[in-house]
Amino acid sequence: MSKRIVLFGELLLRLNPEGFARLVQADRLQVYYTGGEANAGASLVKWGHSASMVSCVPAHEMGDACVNYLRRFGIDTRYVQRAGERLGLFYVETGASQRQSMVIYDRKESAFTTYSDDGLDWAEVLAGADWFHFTGTAPAVARRLVPVLTRACTAAQRLGIRVSCDLNYRAKLWTPQEAAESMAGLLPLVNVFVCGAEDAAAIFGVQGDEDLAVAAQLAGRFGFTHVLMPRRESRSASHNTISAFLWHATQFAVSRTHEIPHIVDRIGAGDAMTAGLIHGLAEGWTLPQTVDFGVAASCLKHSVPGDFGLASLEEVQALAAGSASGRIQR
Amino acid sequence: MSKRIVLFGELLLRLNPEGFARLVQADRLQVYYTGGEANAGASLVKWGHSASMVSCVPAHEMGDACVNYLRRFGIDTRYVQRAGERLGLFYVETGASQRQSMVIYDRKESAFTTYSDDGLDWAEVLAGADWFHFTGTAPAVARRLVPVLTRACTAAQRLGIRVSCDLNYRAKLWTPQEAAESMAGLLPLVNVFVCGAEDAAAIFGVQGDEDLAVAAQLAGRFGFTHVLMPRRESRSASHNTISAFLWHATQFAVSRTHEIPHIVDRIGAGDAMTAGLIHGLAEGWTLPQTVDFGVAASCLKHSVPGDFGLASLEEVQALAAGSASGRIQR
Amino acid sequence: MSKRIVLFGELLLRLNPEGFARLVQADRLQVYYTGGEANAGASLVKWGHSASMVSCVPAHEMGDACVNYLRRFGIDTRYVQRAGERLGLFYVETGASQRQSMVIYDRKESAFTTYSDDGLDWAEVLAGADWFHFTGTAPAVARRLVPVLTRACTAAQRLGIRVSCDLNYRAKLWTPQEAAESMAGLLPLVNVFVCGAEDAAAIFGVQGDEDLAVAAQLAGRFGFTHVLMPRRESRSASHNTISAFLWHATQFAVSRTHEIPHIVDRIGAGDAMTAGLIHGLAEGWTLPQTVDFGVAASCLKHSVPGDFGLASLEEVQALAAGSASGRIQR
Amino acid sequence: MSKRIVLFGELLLRLNPEGFARLVQADRLQVYYTGGEANAGASLVKWGHSASMVSCVPAHEMGDACVNYLRRFGIDTRYVQRAGERLGLFYVETGASQRQSMVIYDRKESAFTTYSDDGLDWAEVLAGADWFHFTGTAPAVARRLVPVLTRACTAAQRLGIRVSCDLNYRAKLWTPQEAAESMAGLLPLVNVFVCGAEDAAAIFGVQGDEDLAVAAQLAGRFGFTHVLMPRRESRSASHNTISAFLWHATQFAVSRTHEIPHIVDRIGAGDAMTAGLIHGLAEGWTLPQTVDFGVAASCLKHSVPGDFGLASLEEVQALAAGSASGRIQR
Amino acid sequence: MSKRIVLFGELLLRLNPEGFARLVQADRLQVYYTGGEANAGASLVKWGHSASMVSCVPAHEMGDACVNYLRRFGIDTRYVQRAGERLGLFYVETGASQRQSMVIYDRKESAFTTYSDDGLDWAEVLAGADWFHFTGTAPAVARRLVPVLTRACTAAQRLGIRVSCDLNYRAKLWTPQEAAESMAGLLPLVNVFVCGAEDAAAIFGVQGDEDLAVAAQLAGRFGFTHVLMPRRESRSASHNTISAFLWHATQFAVSRTHEIPHIVDRIGAGDAMTAGLIHGLAEGWTLPQTVDFGVAASCLKHSVPGDFGLASLEEVQALAAGSASGRIQR
Amino acid sequence: MSKRIVLFGELLLRLNPEGFARLVQADRLQVYYTGGEANAGASLVKWGHSASMVSCVPAHEMGDACVNYLRRFGIDTRYVQRAGERLGLFYVETGASQRQSMVIYDRKESAFTTYSDDGLDWAEVLAGADWFHFTGTAPAVARRLVPVLTRACTAAQRLGIRVSCDLNYRAKLWTPQEAAESMAGLLPLVNVFVCGAEDAAAIFGVQGDEDLAVAAQLAGRFGFTHVLMPRRESRSASHNTISAFLWHATQFAVSRTHEIPHIVDRIGAGDAMTAGLIHGLAEGWTLPQTVDFGVAASCLKHSVPGDFGLASLEEVQALAAGSASGRIQR
Repeated sequence: MSKRIVLFGELLLRLNPEGFARLVQADRLQVYYTGGEANAGASLVKWGHSASMVSCVPAHEMGDACVNYLRRFGIDTRYVQRAGERLGLFYVETGASQRQSMVIYDRKESAFTTYSDDGLDWAEVLAGADWFHFTGTAPAVARRLVPVLTRACTAAQRLGIRVSCDLNYRAKLWTPQEAAESMAGLLPLVNVFVCGAEDAAAIFGVQGDEDLAVAAQLAGRFGFTHVLMPRRESRSASHNTISAFLWHATQFAVSRTHEIPHIVDRIGAGDAMTAGLIHGLAEGWTLPQTVDFGVAASCLKHSVPGDFGLASLEEVQALAAGSASGRIQR
Repeated sequence: MSKRIVLFGELLLRLNPEGFARLVQADRLQVYYTGGEANAGASLVKWGHSASMVSCVPAHEMGDACVNYLRRFGIDTRYVQRAGERLGLFYVETGASQRQSMVIYDRKESAFTTYSDDGLDWAEVLAGADWFHFTGTAPAVARRLVPVLTRACTAAQRLGIRVSCDLNYRAKLWTPQEAAESMAGLLPLVNVFVCGAEDAAAIFGVQGDEDLAVAAQLAGRFGFTHVLMPRRESRSASHNTISAFLWHATQFAVSRTHEIPHIVDRIGAGDAMTAGLIHGLAEGWTLPQTVDFGVAASCLKHSVPGDFGLASLEEVQALAAGSASGRIQR
Repeated sequence: MSKRIVLFGELLLRLNPEGFARLVQADRLQVYYTGGEANAGASLVKWGHSASMVSCVPAHEMGDACVNYLRRFGIDTRYVQRAGERLGLFYVETGASQRQSMVIYDRKESAFTTYSDDGLDWAEVLAGADWFHFTGTAPAVARRLVPVLTRACTAAQRLGIRVSCDLNYRAKLWTPQEAAESMAGLLPLVNVFVCGAEDAAAIFGVQGDEDLAVAAQLAGRFGFTHVLMPRRESRSASHNTISAFLWHATQFAVSRTHEIPHIVDRIGAGDAMTAGLIHGLAEGWTLPQTVDFGVAASCLKHSVPGDFGLASLEEVQALAAGSASGRIQR
Repeated sequence: MSKRIVLFGELLLRLNPEGFARLVQADRLQVYYTGGEANAGASLVKWGHSASMVSCVPAHEMGDACVNYLRRFGIDTRYVQRAGERLGLFYVETGASQRQSMVIYDRKESAFTTYSDDGLDWAEVLAGADWFHFTGTAPAVARRLVPVLTRACTAAQRLGIRVSCDLNYRAKLWTPQEAAESMAGLLPLVNVFVCGAEDAAAIFGVQGDEDLAVAAQLAGRFGFTHVLMPRRESRSASHNTISAFLWHATQFAVSRTHEIPHIVDRIGAGDAMTAGLIHGLAEGWTLPQTVDFGVAASCLKHSVPGDFGLASLEEVQALAAGSASGRIQR
Repeated sequence: MSKRIVLFGELLLRLNPEGFARLVQADRLQVYYTGGEANAGASLVKWGHSASMVSCVPAHEMGDACVNYLRRFGIDTRYVQRAGERLGLFYVETGASQRQSMVIYDRKESAFTTYSDDGLDWAEVLAGADWFHFTGTAPAVARRLVPVLTRACTAAQRLGIRVSCDLNYRAKLWTPQEAAESMAGLLPLVNVFVCGAEDAAAIFGVQGDEDLAVAAQLAGRFGFTHVLMPRRESRSASHNTISAFLWHATQFAVSRTHEIPHIVDRIGAGDAMTAGLIHGLAEGWTLPQTVDFGVAASCLKHSVPGDFGLASLEEVQALAAGSASGRIQR
Repeated sequence: MSKRIVLFGELLLRLNPEGFARLVQADRLQVYYTGGEANAGASLVKWGHSASMVSCVPAHEMGDACVNYLRRFGIDTRYVQRAGERLGLFYVETGASQRQSMVIYDRKESAFTTYSDDGLDWAEVLAGADWFHFTGTAPAVARRLVPVLTRACTAAQRLGIRVSCDLNYRAKLWTPQEAAESMAGLLPLVNVFVCGAEDAAAIFGVQGDEDLAVAAQLAGRFGFTHVLMPRRESRSASHNTISAFLWHATQFAVSRTHEIPHIVDRIGAGDAMTAGLIHGLAEGWTLPQTVDFGVAASCLKHSVPGDFGLASLEEVQALAAGSASGRIQR
């Protein structure tokens, strides 16, 4: 059944050379518009939900282009403010074999960092919503957005809307200390949390030999109902293995493991997994169903260029159910 | 020694996004012209034979473009009628890793389905020919072509020309029942038959634990001199393993197995194998030579974009002989 | 003030070679999605209105891509049915100097021709709407849509919604006689009519030395409140001159004339003019304001690739007001 | 009625940046295969004739690509030898406004310069032919081809086949003196000669205030039946005016003048005119018909990228008859 | 004779859609690196001079790509600091006919605005130089660069090096008042000034019916030896007319007027003119020679994509001398 | 510490289809400029050294483009003569899986083969240099360059500059006998030699079961201080394994082995290894450090399109130190 998901986060321009060229070789760059929350939203829309983005882009043509891109993939842009001067952006180089992919951020002073909820009634924005989602990059790019998020999460909790947060820690944006400090007040308002084991250790000092211990500690400290911990092994820039661990109260589930031997584009794979998590929990699926769906969505994202996971419900379900033969559909 | 092969079948426009993009992402599509029989023909021409296509495309510029494409790769287009209104087409998405490739057909009411051999003297078309080839997609797209094919095959048999048919069953075009019915009258006019074990079971109800049994039953029922059964294992959309089984009277041969770990484009690989089969049999090669050549041709097709197998005789022979090191020629 | 416009018409895939290449030279084609009504709708959305498309595209990925394209440019696709098997399409060659542009249609048996309003409540679709628009290509591609349009127009008239129709006569789709016959019952339900003088003569037998006479006769016969007659002089495929004549009751207005010396893409220019007409009339502008706005919108469309007129309100108004210097904005 | 034209000349690879970029900016180059004679041949095939190319390209893949390109546009490549080591090539920059287009030749030591007619029976090559055509660039790139051409022309004359030669003087290939010397023995074997007034003066010392005088002198000296003198005025790299003067015995005709205000690609325009000349004369048209057809073909060539004039008989005839409005065909 | 020119200014990334597409349509953007001073420098290097850029770009790959681009066109990048976080950038839409080209700046907080000459010995940078050039955009993007420029100009004057400044006023960067204020202290250190009549009026309040009066007043106020006043008439985005007025003490010269009917890319045309001015004055040419050379260089820039005027000395001189026929060089 | 490396060798244009297309399919070719020595030079510049190229390209725009390309990547082109008529070139097809990559040379009579050191003072060119490098392709393309190289090497030895030579044997350029003869006089002037075991056997008759024996014999015969022997195993065109053996006097080192499972572009990988060797030896590193660095540089080259190894010092060192996880840097 279709749910309504509200997302808060930055919208960015992504620029990358074609194929495996390096930035110093490029005389053309491919254009995608993205953002961790929008990436999740695009998958959720593809799976039949509605997704409303709360964000801010400039009033000029590059803001138009960004909004249009979201609309194209079905995201409701009614709450995307048009203000500020620049669209945050980043450059990507796609690695291969031993050469790593690389991201250069240019998102300071972006329109999003000027976002203001003055005059916005969060209760109205969230009316009829089933879920509110944000990632840690929002406070990371602008500490002044912490009170905005606090108001949003508080309103969501008051309305009985589930709140999820993907920590999405980026060392290029803030230090572990800054992250810990900014998230401290927000996380008690979060129900569903996504965080890798390494980040849990570095930022929250939560350690443990096993994901179970880490998840339980995180949940204990902040009151989460669910903790998703993605796992990735990187054999090379072209070949990764992914899976995930999902914790809920006294239960947990470990997903199937997918080997991805021919990565087309890795960026956005985490957001696709989060989208799968939201989908599964919103649909009331079991933990194993949910985590397998999320990991399958993430796996398929690796095969598509750009940040949006464009896999259909049928494609994800088939893979989650174990069909990975890759035969032509004809 | 150069042979003359006559081919009957549809000509189509193929459109696909560049690289691994999905159709919803594409603002440009790559253009190829194709058809199962033309694909085989292009390989046969590359190996020194002449190939004449009997088909029908519209009289407008898209028909010109299709005819030109065939001429470019050396296929004789003298017998390509110019009639009808539309060129049949299909859209392709190239999969990677766990994401399957996908084909969307738009070939109904195509010019080819209006093909008529009124006023055509098949004996003249086939004069000097060594081989006549068609695939099951011709009757699949237009049942009214069954009598046309019957006349063509009958003329070929009368002239002592060998007739081959690749069943090439496509579930999107017809049901197994429809296929069985339409092929029933045609197959007794066929000498060399290409058919996978699964399709043999589903369509003709021919089952057996081993390819040998299946081939023998098929041959027994329809009177084939040769039956080729391709085998494919699909580890992922990017990584397949192929081989084939070739039956002739009391003998059979199993080809080498080729692992193809970096598939560029799978479409047309079956047609390249059939071309290899025709080449080997027409040249009077042994069964093992023939089946190894066919499988090598098919294997190399996977490394080339588009439907035509553009490998040279030397390249195919080298691979059939076991050289797959992939060193640069310089 | 923002209006709600409802549009009924076909959605199509447009494919054209890059630049001035001919179709026989192309190994890539650019992709646009279009339709006369959607083209008008995209302009209206750009100018601040809402536009809802009523149409039908296939349920597969090419239908998705088409719907996404409309959404990208802000058109509401809620009423786009997903049925049928194929997306109608056409191929375009862009001419230059003495070489004409050329269009090859492949839109027979398209999903749109299977459109059904069974179970659709036109009153609900049109609720809150200010305008209903369609073009003559809808009945041209499927005569069975005439009763659908009759129901739609009748519902609109009942709700006091203005109805516009651009005859948009295409000789490749139907004969003048067929057009006259099919439009006969529809036009009395139309308030605002767009039709060139040549087509008025050929189809309706309405002749006169001057546009005034033609418009008055058309209005007299069918009861139109407004008649827009576009005028185009084609010096070459690259250089045209456009203007228009707008009639209303006892008044009329002739627009400025714009010379367009470097045409980038002519297709959709008529639809942009119609969009301007709807905008002006819906805003309650004077006849001269309206016709100048429409012609300016049409003029600017010639400078943009693809069928959508992507000019902003400010750009169109500046040109309508006489600013055509083409200086860089920086 | 379809004629058979035999052409002798070099086949070349043409490389140019996309659009108006300069060579120092290009990281991709567009690929065309060309040659003055092949260019004429492609037009003649488009108009329903058969054209056989006698030439030489290397046996490697670049030779294949060149041969395939000719076949694509219908030219018979049976007499294209496969020998030598390199395909001659040239680089093109397309100018605009005041910036001239530019050509850099790299055709020395090309496969064509090694062409040998040892063992070739010209009578057999020319059997059934109606016309033999070559241009002055063949002897220009290899003086050793003069005796080959002498044999070919002699055989043609013996068989009653008309011989045409476009002087096509290129200062980058030889000096006027060299040209005069090499052509001296060939021109008496030529019936139809194409040569601009400037070149006639510079190379043959034939001067006169009017084309009539020049043509008559040239014909008098070498015995031509027809002399075509193209005229071009270049207002800018983007805007030219063309016409031509055609002389025959006591008659002459001057073509319409076409202004070409938006040149897409000028290269090959002369060859398209020569093709038109051959077509008209071979069809037995009057001088005015012939010269107008030739100039119209040349005019249309300016609107198409690449060296081949891809205009259809209908397009050329319509323009020759005066229709240049450039309206869309739909 | 080769001169050494030192340039101070920002380096920027330019991104634009291909052809005439609008930004909302683009899924790829072309990449150029640019800056008013670098543009002039590239022309000067092309004409045989050496040009050293003093600037600042980030230490990451986008800074590398920018530096590489300058090196590619021969500019000495020794004095390009590697600091700051982002490369300033702008988006361009290329207009056509009545649609204006458009620029969106995103250059705030760029690496260049953090430029520091701490520890830089301007006397060393300028050693052996013949000319120092900057434009008004440097103080426009960062007022804190005024003292840097003051030190640079003072050092140049002390060493007897001529200083030129192109006001290059951009309303999107600062107000006329801000420009007047910031330039007040710098202009007395400038010898050669480039400024349009409109900007002279708006910023310096210098008015006059004729350029002569304006130039004389500017020179009188600030002590310039030369004032260049470009003139441009814009008939459309595709068609401009340019010329210039050059003042020196009691003399002046007016250039030829060039009509540019097919503009490929206008950006950088002013910088090419300034480069021509510097070249002429540095070579000791007369005023008419100098201004004609500058205008010809600017004219040719319009025919090349990107901001760099890539015309050779011979090309510019030929056009300055009146040859604009645009014939192919071959 | 930055060293100065002087390189002598040919500069070439490389043309290849995009992706995995074959040459017969290409209507566009990608452009790179290259040469074994320039490839090594580009890596050395990237790692902080200066590299001066001694070579010869034509005076026309293709020579400009080549010089610009080298400058772009920081190579000093002061000693690149501008003479001769053509830029040598080659065509590349990139293989995949079982299909081999292929190179077609067209470098005969290139500008480089006309190189003359008349009037060149090698002592001046080499002043301040730390290293002189050339490859065997220079004498291979023009035997007349042997005395030039002899003078260069002699001057280097006199100045105490180390000389390296990569034999880089290409069977398409000369026979083993020719190579042996031409190199005989040069190799005694070489200190550091790069040569595969197979070539050592074929050309110098040096055989041995182990690389150690081969290297020692080579060094014994010619007096080398160091011998580098690259090792490559080619599982397929997409998947290779590389390592190297480095010999010095009584010591040797064997590098780590890198498996490269997703080759993007193999060409230039050997030159990147040689660059790493030069870097390590010039920096005074140990044998294991040096050989591991060289192999890591070579390994990373396989992940980048084009011939230049664009990996940074940090990237190479990280891989040499064992980090190959390919995680995204963000």
